[in-house]
Amino acid sequence: MVLGTTFVLVFVPASAVVGILFALTQWFIVSKIQVGAGRVSNNGYMHVDEDGVDDSEVNAKCAEIQAAISEGSEAFLTTMYTYLAIFMGLFSVIIFVFLASVGGFSFDRQPCDYDQTKSCPSSIASAFFSTVAFILGALTSTLSGYLGMKIATYANARTTLEARKGVGKAFAIAFRSGAVMGFLLAANGLLVLFLTILVFKLYFGDDWVGLYEAITGYGLGGSSVALFGRVGGGIYTKAADVGADLVGKVEQNIPEDDPRNPAVIADNVGDNVGDIAGMGADLFGSFAESTCAALVVSSISSFGNDKNFVAMCFPLLISSAGILVCLLTTLVATDIMSVKGVKEIEPTLKRQLVISTVLMTVAIFLISWFGLPETFTINVVGHEAKVVKNWHIFFCVGSGLWAGLIIGFVTEYFTSNAYTPVQDVADSCRTGAATNIIFGLALGYKSVIVPVFAIAVAIYLSFSLAAMYGIAVAALGMLSTLATGLAIDAYGPISDNAGGIAEMAGMSHEVRERTDALDAAGNTTAAIGKGFAIGSAALVSLALFGAYVSRAGIASVDVIQPKEFVGLIVGAMLPYWFSAMTMKSVGKAALAMVEEVRRQFRTIPGLMEGTTKPDYKRCVKISTDASLKEMIPPGALVMLTPLIVGTLFGVETLAGLLAGALVSGVQIAISISENCDLFSGYLINRIARLQTALRILDLDVGVTGNLSMVGFVSFTYEMPGPVTYLCIAVEGYY
Amino acid sequence: MVLGTTFVLVFVPASAVVGILFALTQWFIVSKIQVGAGRVSNNGYMHVDEDGVDDSEVNAKCAEIQAAISEGSEAFLTTMYTYLAIFMGLFSVIIFVFLASVGGFSFDRQPCDYDQTKSCPSSIASAFFSTVAFILGALTSTLSGYLGMKIATYANARTTLEARKGVGKAFAIAFRSGAVMGFLLAANGLLVLFLTILVFKLYFGDDWVGLYEAITGYGLGGSSVALFGRVGGGIYTKAADVGADLVGKVEQNIPEDDPRNPAVIADNVGDNVGDIAGMGADLFGSFAESTCAALVVSSISSFGNDKNFVAMCFPLLISSAGILVCLLTTLVATDIMSVKGVKEIEPTLKRQLVISTVLMTVAIFLISWFGLPETFTINVVGHEAKVVKNWHIFFCVGSGLWAGLIIGFVTEYFTSNAYTPVQDVADSCRTGAATNIIFGLALGYKSVIVPVFAIAVAIYLSFSLAAMYGIAVAALGMLSTLATGLAIDAYGPISDNAGGIAEMAGMSHEVRERTDALDAAGNTTAAIGKGFAIGSAALVSLALFGAYVSRAGIASVDVIQPKEFVGLIVGAMLPYWFSAMTMKSVGKAALAMVEEVRRQFRTIPGLMEGTTKPDYKRCVKISTDASLKEMIPPGALVMLTPLIVGTLFGVETLAGLLAGALVSGVQIAISISENCDLFSGYLINRIARLQTALRILDLDVGVTGNLSMVGFVSFTYEMPGPVTYLCIAVEGYY
Repeated sequence: MVLGTTFVLVFVPASAVVGILFALTQWFIVSKIQVGAGRVSNNGYMHVDEDGVDDSEVNAKCAEIQAAISEGSEAFLTTMYTYLAIFMGLFSVIIFVFLASVGGFSFDRQPCDYDQTKSCPSSIASAFFSTVAFILGALTSTLSGYLGMKIATYANARTTLEARKGVGKAFAIAFRSGAVMGFLLAANGLLVLFLTILVFKLYFGDDWVGLYEAITGYGLGGSSVALFGRVGGGIYTKAADVGADLVGKVEQNIPEDDPRNPAVIADNVGDNVGDIAGMGADLFGSFAESTCAALVVSSISSFGNDKNFVAMCFPLLISSAGILVCLLTTLVATDIMSVKGVKEIEPTLKRQLVISTVLMTVAIFLISWFGLPETFTINVVGHEAKVVKNWHIFFCVGSGLWAGLIIGFVTEYFTSNAYTPVQDVADSCRTGAATNIIFGLALGYKSVIVPVFAIAVAIYLSFSLAAMYGIAVAALGMLSTLATGLAIDAYGPISDNAGGIAEMAGMSHEVRERTDALDAAGNTTAAIGKGFAIGSAALVSLALFGAYVSRAGIASVDVIQPKEFVGLIVGAMLPYWFSAMTMKSVGKAALAMVEEVRRQFRTIPGLMEGTTKPDYKRCVKISTDASLKEMIPPGALVMLTPLIVGTLFGVETLAGLLAGALVSGVQIAISISENCDLFSGYLINRIARLQTALRILDLDVGVTGNLSMVGFVSFTYEMPGPVTYLCIAVEGYY
Repeated sequence: MVLGTTFVLVFVPASAVVGILFALTQWFIVSKIQVGAGRVSNNGYMHVDEDGVDDSEVNAKCAEIQAAISEGSEAFLTTMYTYLAIFMGLFSVIIFVFLASVGGFSFDRQPCDYDQTKSCPSSIASAFFSTVAFILGALTSTLSGYLGMKIATYANARTTLEARKGVGKAFAIAFRSGAVMGFLLAANGLLVLFLTILVFKLYFGDDWVGLYEAITGYGLGGSSVALFGRVGGGIYTKAADVGADLVGKVEQNIPEDDPRNPAVIADNVGDNVGDIAGMGADLFGSFAESTCAALVVSSISSFGNDKNFVAMCFPLLISSAGILVCLLTTLVATDIMSVKGVKEIEPTLKRQLVISTVLMTVAIFLISWFGLPETFTINVVGHEAKVVKNWHIFFCVGSGLWAGLIIGFVTEYFTSNAYTPVQDVADSCRTGAATNIIFGLALGYKSVIVPVFAIAVAIYLSFSLAAMYGIAVAALGMLSTLATGLAIDAYGPISDNAGGIAEMAGMSHEVRERTDALDAAGNTTAAIGKGFAIGSAALVSLALFGAYVSRAGIASVDVIQPKEFVGLIVGAMLPYWFSAMTMKSVGKAALAMVEEVRRQFRTIPGLMEGTTKPDYKRCVKISTDASLKEMIPPGALVMLTPLIVGTLFGVETLAGLLAGALVSGVQIAISISENCDLFSGYLINRIARLQTALRILDLDVGVTGNLSMVGFVSFTYEMPGPVTYLCIAVEGYY
């Protein structure tokens, strides 16, 4: 290895800062488009052909709608974060007490686990630092979600306004805004983590094992917030969506996003709190968990013993390089090869994936070669330590990275209307809805095959080469291009909102067509984003699973033993249970929404004629209340199951349970999320051929898809989180 | 133990013969109702109030329709069995060659594996006997399916005619006919197996290990036929169902089973070849596999070493006692507490489950206590031999039996309109189809929870008490009341057909209402039947998995090793792949059917007016051709995957794969099959509130359900079959 400590101390924070500055630059560019009647004369859109629609009036309307969406989103997130703050506070106390209890609440320094001759921090001190890391993780996650929502609600109307100039311009705004979120999140997460390590090091000194164990709190905090963000946001967005579409599109036969629909603002708020804030928190959680898993494993490796600072920061170096690579990649889309027409949208987004993956491969090679010792060992509980060469790690990280690309491409293949799967589904419409549904579901099931093989190959390769460390860095590899992935992903809901605003502001048909084109591509990219989220969650949860078995001192999880097998089969059931809960919640909330929308149509005179305004706020409140109330049982299932199973049935059953939940969840998640996007992609692209059946289908499969996905993503990878952690605390109890 | 060899030699065949005689008696009772115009004057129905419909004409019509259904079913099964015969012939050759190759095609007797001082049959002889057992298993399975179809197509019109007298009479006929099938199948399977053992013993002498290894061919033969029977029959029935309903119910707005619908005969044929013949072959396969698994394990136990004939026949004793218990149970429904009104149908069927389970528990206790040595040992590869007491085995068998009852009750709870789940789904209709679908799917997911816990407890208990032997006998326990289970199950499609015939024959509204009531209960019982099939398949496949790991000499399947984990995650994907294939096949076949039905409505003048008859045969042919062609790829996936994975990636990966497929398949199967029946139960019971959306839903979820279930049942438990077997042959190769 060549890189030195100074390099790390400069490179990591510098990359993070560059990422943040880049995000701010993009934000600045976006902000130059002004929304609001007062400033119309300044923003230069008077030249645009406006089909006779009064420019200043449109602009004012956009501003008004944007404010309503923004307000609703803010209100929901603020309320949710208040609840979360209480929960996180309680959970912090539990963590602190548990951890401190291990050493009998002692303030005395104690002999280290790994070397009895050395002295390590007292149990109170360890507990304190872990709790601080936990809170920091939770705060960073909250911030990520909140910032994402802010940016998205800032960009939506601007994208609409820019769509008047042309599809290329609108695309640039939506994509730049997505990039703001992507870079802020990636850079922010990295920076906070790095600074936390440096500060903690002042206390821990050379005790890397203790330091990195305390740091795992960061991952747990991030993923706990992600769990509730995902579930709460998911219930919100789907309840609003179903409510709005059922009464509006199906019963009253008014277009999507029509301003007469009382649930239309709630629907648009949903995109921001569910698909943006939820997804942001989720991917941040994955990032934090996988980094922490890699750090913990590395602290008990040979370079951990050697106190090799650079090698131990390897996961952070990967993420830092990722930010720079994504920066270059983004420039290609925004400046070098910008979008000119509708047909270029999808290829441009796809190119982003390819470029970032190729560049990142080079970066990974360099960092592995120069940042790791030529040979080192990884400890494996109950087995011989694994001897690893630095280029092995290149293959581990690379396999995760390329598996991500493959998942992205497969997802695109299955959800874009440019290829046969979607076209087949469309053709099957000729004979009616039932054959259509059969084909669609069959396709969803089929779409599982390749991603699972890709994940399996990545797991096999990295597992064989570097045991659990390999898995953790493979997950990091998949997430190394996080900034680009998030930009592509956030682009979707922003475009969706932009379309909604265009419709509500009564913009011309031409503008609406452009935003629809953006939105259609956005559906595909949203699917790609979900693909990444699922793939990385699978790897992360395996890494955490590995961390758990290491900590619990389990040398093998033998599924031909009764306890393990029972765990396995019950674990495979859990994602279904979780999904049943979330779906039931959505059903209940949607029911309430439908009744409210119907009531408004019935009782507010002049609503259908467009002379009176509906009461948007009541609909927003219904979604808000329902999602806050309903996110608790599934959350509790995730948090409590492992603790209960571990305590009552022992570590073997728990290990089986985690494995079962992981492998079963991946399948549900991919199959139904692809399905969901396959249908919505189809719907938007062939809107002329819509049938009632298909509308129902969209709702049906869409809802199922989203929530099963939420179920899986939150479920499987959040689940081992608390376990791993509390297991550290209650090692003796299990 | 008290029982002697003579007891076994008398008790087992006597029970089987009693079962067969009982079945024939029931058939005789059913046959007293005469169908056909010529004999109207003799059958005593002239007294019945007929709402002015001419009796002899109706009777003639029924006979005609019955003949058409019977002819179609026979034609399909004959063609399918021809294909199967070719496949089975080829497969027999492969088995023979593989097995014979182990010993280098030698005719010389060889030293035994378990005791080198003894001499065992030559490899050619072993291969010969295994192949014979395989062929016998395949033939018995074929016979079971065929007889079931024959009985069902014989009973359907008779049930219709009897419905004119009242619902109680009709119920008795449908249930008696179901019993004919149940008892014939259970008794036949047992008798053939027992005679085969006795005949083989003449050659094998005291070499029980060799004998029971050869006998496993019986299980493989049975389950291979079951696989194709299930898949072929499943595709047939669903293609016809979707085709008939889509054009008839949805487009032309004519009632279900209307004779003007060209696909109506194909639809009714489907019930017989799919739900009767397919289910029969399937459950026979489970029975044969679990018995063989138990026999193989027992041959290497301590009583196997002691050549304790009675103890080694324990699985057969359980099945024999089961036949007698079911006989008593059936009498309760047919003679002691017969059904008087519509409300008594479901309680009567449920009572059957309870009575048979309670009686069987006593029987199991007696057989375990008197038929097994007080203490014996079961060998476990790589671990210490397990010391087992005879009353442990009582708990193993009993846990399977009672888990079956619990699954039956949960299924009933979730699919009967007497309880809240179905009522909730019905209520959610108020707000439209989408909320309805969400609630329904959520319920389907939820219905997995209790059955999985029931299976898990049974597995844990029997696994802990008696290792793999425990699992095998637990599966047997669940299947010990097979005759009753099958009777209840077959009752469903028979009633369904009876309803169809009533409609087609233009019978009075009153009669149609009665057959509808029978049919509604039949939907719930069909769901219960599926529950049993899934539960027992889970146990059987675990038992086979155990047999496989034993044979492959795998001491542990450690899922924190790369190969095993990759196997696990890919295995969990396989049921999805399989389901994707079968669903796509149904989609294609249904598409062809829809086009044909539309074509006939368009081109045949007078069809809608009822003056011309449609061309039923063409529709039958479409379903037949499609299902025969389409059953091959999924069948190949099941048969080839384990061989390919085992050969290319080794036993560890294969072991993981089997575990993954098992635990993931159980979930899909239960969730979607319950769903399917939940909706169809609902649909039939509240027909007045039907909406287009719900009709689509029935097709959608119904199809998915049936086929995913097929996917799982055939898939997971068939899969280890060939492996276990070929593994014996190619032990050295892997």
